[in-house]
Amino acid sequence: MTTPSNPSAGVLPSFRVPAGEIDRRIQCVQVQLQNAGLDGILVLQRVDLFYLSGTAQNGCLYLPAEGPPLLFVKQSVLRARAESPIEHLIEIASIREVPTRIADTSGRQPAKIGFELDVLPVNEFRFYQELFQPAECVDASPFILRSRGVKSAWEIEQLRSTAAMSGRTFDYMREVIRPGLTEMEFAGIFEAYARGIGHGGKLRVRHHNTEGYTWHVLSGASGGMVGVLDSPASGAGTSAAFPAGAGHKRLCTDEPIMVDFGSVMNGYHMDETRMFAIDRMPEPALRISRAAIELHQAALENARPGTPVGALFDRIERMACSLGLEDSFLGPPGRKVSFIGHGIGLELIEPPIIARGKNTPLEAGMVIALEPKFVYENRFAAGIESVFEVTENGGRLISTVPVDIFVCKTD
Amino acid sequence: MTTPSNPSAGVLPSFRVPAGEIDRRIQCVQVQLQNAGLDGILVLQRVDLFYLSGTAQNGCLYLPAEGPPLLFVKQSVLRARAESPIEHLIEIASIREVPTRIADTSGRQPAKIGFELDVLPVNEFRFYQELFQPAECVDASPFILRSRGVKSAWEIEQLRSTAAMSGRTFDYMREVIRPGLTEMEFAGIFEAYARGIGHGGKLRVRHHNTEGYTWHVLSGASGGMVGVLDSPASGAGTSAAFPAGAGHKRLCTDEPIMVDFGSVMNGYHMDETRMFAIDRMPEPALRISRAAIELHQAALENARPGTPVGALFDRIERMACSLGLEDSFLGPPGRKVSFIGHGIGLELIEPPIIARGKNTPLEAGMVIALEPKFVYENRFAAGIESVFEVTENGGRLISTVPVDIFVCKTD
Repeated sequence: MTTPSNPSAGVLPSFRVPAGEIDRRIQCVQVQLQNAGLDGILVLQRVDLFYLSGTAQNGCLYLPAEGPPLLFVKQSVLRARAESPIEHLIEIASIREVPTRIADTSGRQPAKIGFELDVLPVNEFRFYQELFQPAECVDASPFILRSRGVKSAWEIEQLRSTAAMSGRTFDYMREVIRPGLTEMEFAGIFEAYARGIGHGGKLRVRHHNTEGYTWHVLSGASGGMVGVLDSPASGAGTSAAFPAGAGHKRLCTDEPIMVDFGSVMNGYHMDETRMFAIDRMPEPALRISRAAIELHQAALENARPGTPVGALFDRIERMACSLGLEDSFLGPPGRKVSFIGHGIGLELIEPPIIARGKNTPLEAGMVIALEPKFVYENRFAAGIESVFEVTENGGRLISTVPVDIFVCKTD
Repeated sequence: MTTPSNPSAGVLPSFRVPAGEIDRRIQCVQVQLQNAGLDGILVLQRVDLFYLSGTAQNGCLYLPAEGPPLLFVKQSVLRARAESPIEHLIEIASIREVPTRIADTSGRQPAKIGFELDVLPVNEFRFYQELFQPAECVDASPFILRSRGVKSAWEIEQLRSTAAMSGRTFDYMREVIRPGLTEMEFAGIFEAYARGIGHGGKLRVRHHNTEGYTWHVLSGASGGMVGVLDSPASGAGTSAAFPAGAGHKRLCTDEPIMVDFGSVMNGYHMDETRMFAIDRMPEPALRISRAAIELHQAALENARPGTPVGALFDRIERMACSLGLEDSFLGPPGRKVSFIGHGIGLELIEPPIIARGKNTPLEAGMVIALEPKFVYENRFAAGIESVFEVTENGGRLISTVPVDIFVCKTD
């Protein structure tokens, strides 16, 4: 067996982040580093590393406040070189080499260096503090998240590709949903389809105690179960060990079924919810589902640059109240969440959170998963979720799933 | 629509951790806290919380070095009460209430308190340091991990249940594997089946930059791709954003296909690998796969209480060398991993790691995923992985998948 010259041709995915994208992102973070008086940031978290370098191989990125970034790679150097447009790629055997290599290249050690302290565990941080001593080590995660919060035209295109895949998967759900499947079986069936048309499988979330998953199928009473999630309804889950999402309950005719489907392709996520019923959507779930669509449309119309996210939240909440639905809006009484949407991109949940009392203004290019939902405890959940881009004319849908309620017939 | 008295009957999963299990675990951690001079530990990580309380709802556990533990729950209190045998369950609206509630119950604030500093992000730790000041806040994760490292008879039974589900899934893989499916399509198909017979979907891993997933299908040249994973082979993945696991390559006849399948049920994980081929397993992959089985059997025979994990590693490595396979053992030259197995239980990867140079002795009741693997760069990977329990008579398989090479016929 001989080794051909390029044996990985056709195996390695061809998707790449363009050099212009990486340049733009680096500049956006560098300006913030300069304003904050940091010498640089050591980017360790996988998603941030991919965002700023185009590669998610085993390594890290040193981004100085000025000058070219240094991409340190343990493995695979060859793949990182093929994936990343970063010029200065330095192979390392150990992360311990990084401070010396930075000093070699830039002529000095950083005196004030940033880390992603929102995700970096304490024990690891202590290792880096010692490694970089006597440098002052501070939190720089807000600078990266700030940059990630506004998407470029290229990123919107990536999100549209994921949305097309997800939209086809929702079409498929309407074909295959049937009574007797457990929630988890149904989820497995549509996810298998999605994987065949590009779904990458892994939903990324930032917080160590938040667990992303694709199987948030809540039928009938499952939709009325609050619990561990910071979401209006948690669902039953498959056990006390994982008490959220799809469970063992079987789908029935004539009950409201909420499908909240997270998807990802080439790193970019979608997060979309639709109400399904088999044969007939019973009242009051039908009425509530329609109300959620009204709120969804109103939020789209009012998602304009300059609007504080809290003002958008207040407007939709007032609308829910005026429809007489305050008791079930965003959860049952006393157990409500205080947001109607969240940013989305390389992670499932990103800033900004469209939450009560937050003054962050919307900006053109922000991408939001908007999810007005209602929960009737122990009975059902109803709602909708789409992803849109903030534009001067209001929210422009990226999601392709029809803004509708899906009543599917058994035959 | 009226609310019946117990509407969640039949929706909530019935699986529960027995009270005796929780008592035993709490005692094991408390002895260690006493020896280390800690007043208590605040358990925040979801898996540790489930391990020590039986519930994974939104909350935390304060485990004093002596006396009864306090389970604090934000949501859902009702579900936590149904899931956990812990007597002192305290509903909280905010985590800020915890120190006062501890003082109310125990008569004083802890002066030295432990946290899971291997996973707790710096910013969160700082919040807790301030909340509990002037207490000394130290790392207590090793005490929990030490306890989790040795499984009870009840836990072994849970692992056997997961193994039975996984074993049936491997049977199913042999039925449905066919040329032309992409790696990811094949993974989606067998995972949908697994979800229908109890697979919980979510593989839990502890480290913030390690991403667990179920679709590690590496066919032909994909198996020869090293990369981001701390594993002999990373595979192609679906894009530079997630450059590991199954990718877009289509399965072919007459090529080695490695399927490394992680599974979970009721919180307990399995991690198993088998070599597949369609029609014919080519040489040298057939010979190498057989060698991996020889190493697997030898490791089982020698996994006895008291044996240092490093000694077991050395023995298997020497055996690989004596078979003339040192170049490809655990990775291509210069890019090898230095372990042949890892603990497994409520997380996919737990201590002990069966690694070079480690003196930790094996103990009866430790459960190990053993994975002797070989990588031929840009050509293929071959190997095997099973889960076993350490007993006085050596490793006793928990995995039910036949220790064999699966050559499947197209018809």
